[in-house]
Amino acid sequence: MNLYDIKGPADIRQLSLSQLNALAKDIREFLVDSIAKTGGHLSSNLGVVELTIALHYVFDSPHDKLIFDVGHQSYVHKLLTGRLHQFHTLRQYKGLSGFQKRKESIHDVWEAGHSSTSLSAALGMAIARDLRKESHCVVPIIGDGALSSGMAMEALNQIGSEKRNMVIIFNDNNMSISKNVGALDTTFTKLRASKPYNSLKHDLSDVLSQSKAGNNLLQGMRSFKNTVKESVVDTSIFGDFNLDYIGPVNGHDLKLLIKVLRIAKKHKGPIVVHVITKKGKGYSFAEEDASGAWHGVSHFDPSTGKVLTQMPPQHASWSEIFSESLIQLAKQDQRIVALTPAMVSGAKLTRFFNQFPQRSFDCGIAEEHAATLAASLALSGMRPFLSVYSSFLQRSYDQIQQDVARMDLPVVFGIDRCGLVGEDGETHHGVFDIAMLRSIPNLILSQPKDAIEAQQLLITAFTQNHPFAIRYPRGHAPFHLEPKVAPLTIGTWTKEQCGQAPIATIITYGSDVDKVIAKARVNAISLQVINARFFKPLDEAMLLTIAQDKLPIIIYETDMLAGGLSSAILEFYNDHKLNIPLTRIGLGDHFIEHGSLPQLRKAEHIDINTLFQTIMELHNAT
Amino acid sequence: MNLYDIKGPADIRQLSLSQLNALAKDIREFLVDSIAKTGGHLSSNLGVVELTIALHYVFDSPHDKLIFDVGHQSYVHKLLTGRLHQFHTLRQYKGLSGFQKRKESIHDVWEAGHSSTSLSAALGMAIARDLRKESHCVVPIIGDGALSSGMAMEALNQIGSEKRNMVIIFNDNNMSISKNVGALDTTFTKLRASKPYNSLKHDLSDVLSQSKAGNNLLQGMRSFKNTVKESVVDTSIFGDFNLDYIGPVNGHDLKLLIKVLRIAKKHKGPIVVHVITKKGKGYSFAEEDASGAWHGVSHFDPSTGKVLTQMPPQHASWSEIFSESLIQLAKQDQRIVALTPAMVSGAKLTRFFNQFPQRSFDCGIAEEHAATLAASLALSGMRPFLSVYSSFLQRSYDQIQQDVARMDLPVVFGIDRCGLVGEDGETHHGVFDIAMLRSIPNLILSQPKDAIEAQQLLITAFTQNHPFAIRYPRGHAPFHLEPKVAPLTIGTWTKEQCGQAPIATIITYGSDVDKVIAKARVNAISLQVINARFFKPLDEAMLLTIAQDKLPIIIYETDMLAGGLSSAILEFYNDHKLNIPLTRIGLGDHFIEHGSLPQLRKAEHIDINTLFQTIMELHNAT
Repeated sequence: MNLYDIKGPADIRQLSLSQLNALAKDIREFLVDSIAKTGGHLSSNLGVVELTIALHYVFDSPHDKLIFDVGHQSYVHKLLTGRLHQFHTLRQYKGLSGFQKRKESIHDVWEAGHSSTSLSAALGMAIARDLRKESHCVVPIIGDGALSSGMAMEALNQIGSEKRNMVIIFNDNNMSISKNVGALDTTFTKLRASKPYNSLKHDLSDVLSQSKAGNNLLQGMRSFKNTVKESVVDTSIFGDFNLDYIGPVNGHDLKLLIKVLRIAKKHKGPIVVHVITKKGKGYSFAEEDASGAWHGVSHFDPSTGKVLTQMPPQHASWSEIFSESLIQLAKQDQRIVALTPAMVSGAKLTRFFNQFPQRSFDCGIAEEHAATLAASLALSGMRPFLSVYSSFLQRSYDQIQQDVARMDLPVVFGIDRCGLVGEDGETHHGVFDIAMLRSIPNLILSQPKDAIEAQQLLITAFTQNHPFAIRYPRGHAPFHLEPKVAPLTIGTWTKEQCGQAPIATIITYGSDVDKVIAKARVNAISLQVINARFFKPLDEAMLLTIAQDKLPIIIYETDMLAGGLSSAILEFYNDHKLNIPLTRIGLGDHFIEHGSLPQLRKAEHIDINTLFQTIMELHNAT
Repeated sequence: MNLYDIKGPADIRQLSLSQLNALAKDIREFLVDSIAKTGGHLSSNLGVVELTIALHYVFDSPHDKLIFDVGHQSYVHKLLTGRLHQFHTLRQYKGLSGFQKRKESIHDVWEAGHSSTSLSAALGMAIARDLRKESHCVVPIIGDGALSSGMAMEALNQIGSEKRNMVIIFNDNNMSISKNVGALDTTFTKLRASKPYNSLKHDLSDVLSQSKAGNNLLQGMRSFKNTVKESVVDTSIFGDFNLDYIGPVNGHDLKLLIKVLRIAKKHKGPIVVHVITKKGKGYSFAEEDASGAWHGVSHFDPSTGKVLTQMPPQHASWSEIFSESLIQLAKQDQRIVALTPAMVSGAKLTRFFNQFPQRSFDCGIAEEHAATLAASLALSGMRPFLSVYSSFLQRSYDQIQQDVARMDLPVVFGIDRCGLVGEDGETHHGVFDIAMLRSIPNLILSQPKDAIEAQQLLITAFTQNHPFAIRYPRGHAPFHLEPKVAPLTIGTWTKEQCGQAPIATIITYGSDVDKVIAKARVNAISLQVINARFFKPLDEAMLLTIAQDKLPIIIYETDMLAGGLSSAILEFYNDHKLNIPLTRIGLGDHFIEHGSLPQLRKAEHIDINTLFQTIMELHNAT
C-alpha cells in the first residue's frame, strides 16, 4: 500500500509485516524530503517511525488515547491520521502545526509544546475513563529527557499510587534535544544495557491470548503479572515508582514492538514499555548528530545535509551575541558561571561550555531547579548567567520570585526567544515574560536594541547586585565583539529625534527601535523615538520630560499588552497625576498561532506598517 | 548545662551524651510552652530535636552549611544558635521569622518557605565551594514529602551526576503536612522497614578516624565507600540517582545519629543519610495526630492540647466555605472532582475527600503536575476543582497558562490564602496572583465579598466552559449553605451607594467591600462602593458609567499594585480614551515581612483608615 493511500490508522491494520516495514521506509523518505522544504523537527520523528506505526497497529486511535509528550515527534502520527496531503504546510501560517493540535484531528487528544506533560495528561484521562466507566487505553509516549523533568516525576509518583491501566511508552533515544545529562541518564543507560526483552516467556501468553479460552485462562493466571516482571532487571527506577516494566525493546523492530505492545495493552495497572530508538534513524547526517543540530532544522538539501538558509555576513544570532559576550566577560571574571536547562545547543552555549567546562552546568529539562541553583550560586559568591527560552522560563516563575528576587540575589537571566518566535507557534511565543516578571520586586528587566547594547547590558548585569534579566529574540543582528564596553545606568532609556518638529513620540524596544527610526527617515516623517531598554525600572525622568512635549505618545510593543510596558507607563503617569492618553500597539488577549514572523506581526497588527498608519492617523486627527 | 546558657553551637560540643539528651528534653518542653503562646510549626520541630542537636554537634555551623528545607522545622536550630531569648517573638511583627532568615543569624545560610528548594541550594553551595577551593560541608535537611516534589528530583538528578561532597539528611517522618501520598511513599516505607543501620561495620572506621594515623589509613582504604554501601538495601531510589546511602537511622538516638553523621561527613561524594523521625515526638497530642492538625498551630493549652483561638459563631473559614459549597454541588454533578497538592487538611477538603473518595485526589507536593492533571480531567469531561494556596500556585504558572488556559479548559481554581496571610510572612503572602494571572488569555479571575457570593461564584464556575479562578483569603466569614444559588453573569460588578451625594467612588474587592460600606455608614460619609468581584473580565459597562460620575475614583487593593486590578482599569480607561485620574491604594514594589494582618495592613498603608484618610484628603482638595 502506498503511503499516499493511508487514510487513517484502520488502513495500517490491513498490512502485512513486510508491508509495514515498506511503509516505514516510505515514511522516512517522505519526512526527509518534506522537512527539507518546510523545516521542522527531523531527528525525533525519524526515530519513532516504527514505534508510531506499531502504536497505530496495536491501539485503536482515537478510541485509545495516544499522547505524544511535547508533540514535536508526532509527525509520523500526523501522516498516519490523514494529514499527509497537508504536510507541505507544516509550521506555516494557517498550515499544520508542528505539534499535536486538537482542532487538527480527532486523533490529537492532547496538545503541548512544553516538555513532560504527557504523564499528567494520561493520568487525567485514565481517571476520567474509570469514573465514566469507559474502557479505552491511555498511552503516553515520553522520551528519556522529558522523563527526568520534575513534573514528569511528580506524575509518575501519583500514577504509581493510583494504579490505573495505562501503557507508558518510554521512548529512550539517550538524547533530549542534545545529549542527556543527569544521574538518571546513567540509570537509564544501565537499563538500556540490561538483558533485552526476552520474547520466550511472553510467547505463552501471546499464544493464549489468541483464543477466547486461552484469554480466560490468561486472565486467571495470577502469575501473569509476575511473568512480566521476570523479564525485568531487578533494580529499576520504575519499580521505585511502583510501576511495572517491560523491555528494553528494539524500537526499530516492528514485529517485536507489535508483540510487546499487545502484551502491555492487556496488562492491568500502569506499565512502562521501554523502547530503544535512534534519533535520526535512517538519515545518516541526523543519525550521526550528537549536538542536537538535527533536532529542529530549517530548509536543507536532503542529499548533502547542507542547511540552505544563510545568515547575512557579519551577523550573529542573538543567542550567539550573548554567549560570545559572556565568554569575553568570563575570561576576566572567574565568578561567572553559565547554566541552562537542556538548551546548550539552542542557546549557543557550546563554545562557553567547551572553554569553561568547570563553570558550565546543563541542568537537564529542569527549569525550576535551574533557577534555584542559580540563586544559590549567586548567594555563594558566584555570578551565574542562566539562559532559558522565555516560554520555558514560565516554569520557574515561583523560583525566580521566591529564591532569586526575594533574597535579592545577582542572578543574570538570559531570556532567549522572547517575543513572537514564528513557526514553533502558540506554545513557544515568548510574549508573556514582561507581564509575568514586572510585578516581582528587586528584579531588573531589560532588552537591547542591538548587539552593542547587548554587550552593555550584559556588563551592567554583572556589575550590580540584583536579579537582572535581559531578554532577546530569535533571529540575528549585526555583531562584532566590542573590546571594551561600559555599564549603562540602570533604568535609563535613550531618545533619538528623526527630522525637525516631530509629530509623535514612539516608545519601543529591541530591534524595532532602529527599524522605526530607519522607516521614519526613509519616509521623511519626523519622530521622536525612544528606546525603552529597561522595562523595569522605567526611565521616570524621561517619561516626565516627554510628558511636557505634548506630542501624541505611541507605545509600540511586540508582546502581550496586558500588564506589559505600556501598562507600567500608565501606572507611572497616573501615579504622577499625568493622565496622558497613550496609543498602545501590542498583542491582544489571546494566544497566537504559528506562522512566519512577518505574517504573524501583520495578522496581530503589530507590524511596522500598522505603527506608521497609526502615527499618520493620529497626526491627521490633530 | 541549662538550655538558656547555650550561646551557640560551640557550647553544644562541650556536652556529654547524657547532657545532650537532657538538652533535648529541655528543648521539647520549651518548644511546647513557647509555641502554645505564639503559635507556629510544632510537630515538625518536635520531630527534629535530636537530629538538630546532632547536626550542630558534628558539623561546624556556619562554616558548614545547614540548609533546612522549607525552614519551618528550623526552630531547634534557632534555639541552638543564640535566638532563644527572642523566641517569644516568633512569627510576630518585627520578631523572629517562622522560617530560616539570613538577616536573623549567620547560621541561616539559606531561606525558603516553599518546599523542596534545599537540594538545589545545596548543589549551588557545593559547586561554589569547589570552584572557590573551599572545604566546608554542605548539609541539606529534607523531609520525605518535600523529596517527592518535582524540583527536588530535578536537583537529585544533577547532584547524582555532579558527585560533589554533600550530606543529604533525609528526614523521614512519613508525613508532609498530613499523611504522605504517592508511589514513592511506598518505596520509602520499604526502605524504612529495611534492616536498620548496622553500626558494627563502621565502628572500625570510627575508631580509625580518632587518630591521625588511623585517618590516613582510612583515607587510603579503597573499600571505605563500599563498606558504607554494604549496609544499604540493594534497591534504593537513591541508587537510581547515583547517590550513596546510609541508614535507616533512629532519629531520636543521639549516640547513633552522631556516629552516622561523622561517617557521612567524611564520605566522598553525595551521600543520603536516612533518618527516621517521629513528627510531634514527646508531645502526645501531636504524636497521635495523623491529619496534620498539629503541623501548624495557633495558641493552645499545653496541658490539654486544646486550641484557644475560637471562631465566632456561625462563621466558617473561607476554605471551609468553599469546600462545603463544593460538596453540595458535587452531590448533584457527578463530573465534579477535587484535587489538591498536599493541602487536604489546610484547604479543609477532608470532608469532601471522605464523602467522595473516588473523586478526590491528593497529588502530593506537586503543583505543576496537579494543574496539568486538572487540565486533562477537564478535557476528558470532568469538572475539576483544584485547591491551591495562592503563593504555591506560583509553581504552576506555566501549566495554568499552557495546559489549562491555552486549551481553554474548564478547570476551577480555588486560590486559597490570597492577599496578606499574616504570621507566615514573606514567602506565604498571596499577593501576586492577580498580576500573574491577568495577562493569561481565556482565564476568568474572581473573588467573592462574602460567603453567599462565594457560592454564587462557585456555581458560576461550574456552569461555564473556561478556566475559572476564585481567590479567597485566610480567615473566616459568616456562613450558611444556601439551598439554591443562581450563577452570576461573568464580568459583572455590583455597586452600593451609602448616603446621598457620594463624595467618591471606591472600587475594592473581597471582604473589604462590606467593611468599607460599614465604616462609611458609621461615619456618615457618602460613598459609592463597587465590588469588583471579577478582576478579569472587568465590568466594562460599570467602568464607563462611573467615568461619567465625575467623582474621585479610589481603587482600594490589598495585593501588589504593579499589574493588579488598578493596572487593568488604567489600561481599559486609556484604551477607551478616558484618561481619568485614579487614586490607587495597594502594595508597593517590595516583599512584605511577617506580622499580624492589622499590623501589616497598617505598615503597608492598605488599612481601612488609610483609605478613609485618602477619601477625606481628596474630598477636601476638591
